[in-house]
Amino acid sequence: MVCRVVDGKRYAKILLEDIKRASQRFFAEYKRKPKLNVIFVGNNESSNIYVRNKKKRAEEVGVLVEVNHFEKEISQELVVDCIESLNLDSAVDGIIVQLPVPPKINPRILLDTVMPQKDVDGFSTYNSGLMLTGQDCFLPCTPQGVLLLIKKILGNDISGKKVGMVGRSLVVGMPLSILLIKEGCTVTVLHSQSLNIEAECKLVDILISATGSPSLIKECCVKTGAFVIDVGISRVDGSIVGDVDFQSVKNIASYITPVPGGVGQMTVASLMLNTIKAAFAHKGTDLDLDFDV
Amino acid sequence: MVCRVVDGKRYAKILLEDIKRASQRFFAEYKRKPKLNVIFVGNNESSNIYVRNKKKRAEEVGVLVEVNHFEKEISQELVVDCIESLNLDSAVDGIIVQLPVPPKINPRILLDTVMPQKDVDGFSTYNSGLMLTGQDCFLPCTPQGVLLLIKKILGNDISGKKVGMVGRSLVVGMPLSILLIKEGCTVTVLHSQSLNIEAECKLVDILISATGSPSLIKECCVKTGAFVIDVGISRVDGSIVGDVDFQSVKNIASYITPVPGGVGQMTVASLMLNTIKAAFAHKGTDLDLDFDV
Repeated sequence: MVCRVVDGKRYAKILLEDIKRASQRFFAEYKRKPKLNVIFVGNNESSNIYVRNKKKRAEEVGVLVEVNHFEKEISQELVVDCIESLNLDSAVDGIIVQLPVPPKINPRILLDTVMPQKDVDGFSTYNSGLMLTGQDCFLPCTPQGVLLLIKKILGNDISGKKVGMVGRSLVVGMPLSILLIKEGCTVTVLHSQSLNIEAECKLVDILISATGSPSLIKECCVKTGAFVIDVGISRVDGSIVGDVDFQSVKNIASYITPVPGGVGQMTVASLMLNTIKAAFAHKGTDLDLDFDV
Repeated sequence: MVCRVVDGKRYAKILLEDIKRASQRFFAEYKRKPKLNVIFVGNNESSNIYVRNKKKRAEEVGVLVEVNHFEKEISQELVVDCIESLNLDSAVDGIIVQLPVPPKINPRILLDTVMPQKDVDGFSTYNSGLMLTGQDCFLPCTPQGVLLLIKKILGNDISGKKVGMVGRSLVVGMPLSILLIKEGCTVTVLHSQSLNIEAECKLVDILISATGSPSLIKECCVKTGAFVIDVGISRVDGSIVGDVDFQSVKNIASYITPVPGGVGQMTVASLMLNTIKAAFAHKGTDLDLDFDV
């Protein structure tokens, strides 16, 4: 089996170039850059890296990022106040809450304070309802990024494909399963309480893992010729690794996304896509990009 | 294989007795009955039957049902006005919109006009988001009824069970899949675009069909000893039939729900459960019933 390593960075770059052009068009028309505010409470080390990456990518495509950084002792009320004033600020197009937040703050309250029109992470209760009921909304960034990647490789019609989704988180597994079902895939959702995960995985054409368990997916879990998508991120001995045992699985898969350099790149690009869409929508314009779900 | 026919009517009756006691307690304490308003536009024949059934069941358990019946020529605006005034009426505990509505009315607008505290069908966008994100909410009646029935038969812990959900509607398939995944089941969602439905169905412990295709599920689709739940309702030659070919499937299943007399009874009971919960919640009291999801 010749396995193709899916270069997430390359696909993200194509998408980001589209976004950059749209962002330049926005600037030419409205004399300001699209703007994303990041609510960042505390000093979680991984969050620091993620926020830095988002900022870097945003700068490259002409999106302004402002980080509203709070010390971890801040009261929830003050963070809510900040989000509410950003909701009212007509120069702000998107607002995201960098998770996790410190224990004394309820992340749900923060996420649900972001108004739907600026909820570019798509994590609010209302936006989740829009997604589930198939209404127009901001798709959560990682699921959207994975879907874009799958369609880039397999084409737009993925109906009838048999998918195994390992993981049922609200950030990846649940929303991605819903999106894939709506695309016409036959989706099996697997998780920590599933029996026979290996055997189940072995049956699917597209295997997606988003658990954060290093080397959960080994060669024995993969059908010959499957498309394996690794959404896991863990740190092992100072290195970033995914859920998939890359070296063994690439002997049997037809496509595999590496970690790093796979899905992660698409997630950030997807955030930029939602932000630029939000910016145009605030001006009453629908943004129509070639690279779209 | 000795197959047990699951008597939905009997289980619904147990639940309804619980609800009746709670409704009597409500009356004793607040000097009025819990009240459900049904928005009914047009004169769809099946809807007429459904509304009559709901009313009858409600009367039996001491819940007041008022039908707001509009001619099919009514404007959407007037129906929205009606729902808005019911939202404000402190004597109204639950509001449901009987679907379908005539083509010139947008059902989504009506569903989303119902305030979350009175949305006892659980069909609003916001309530769908609450359900998906695992927050406290009104569970849609048929999914909740099916879940109650499964737990009555198999016990409260159904984690690890392999479920095949045939159908991906917003009323049954999608929400029920989400609830079962959260319960720890391994769920495969099958639908009109799935390939090999028969083979997929044959692998599962709990097979649920909610498509409205008579005789879709035959003996060859069922694993020996499976629990088969028929949520389909169709009219064939004047009779009500489900998705499951009952006569052949009962030779191989260990449990089967009949149509009529199966899940349908639990759906109405589930609506009464949500209404009585809403009534107590409006008075600031949580209702704790034995028979609960």
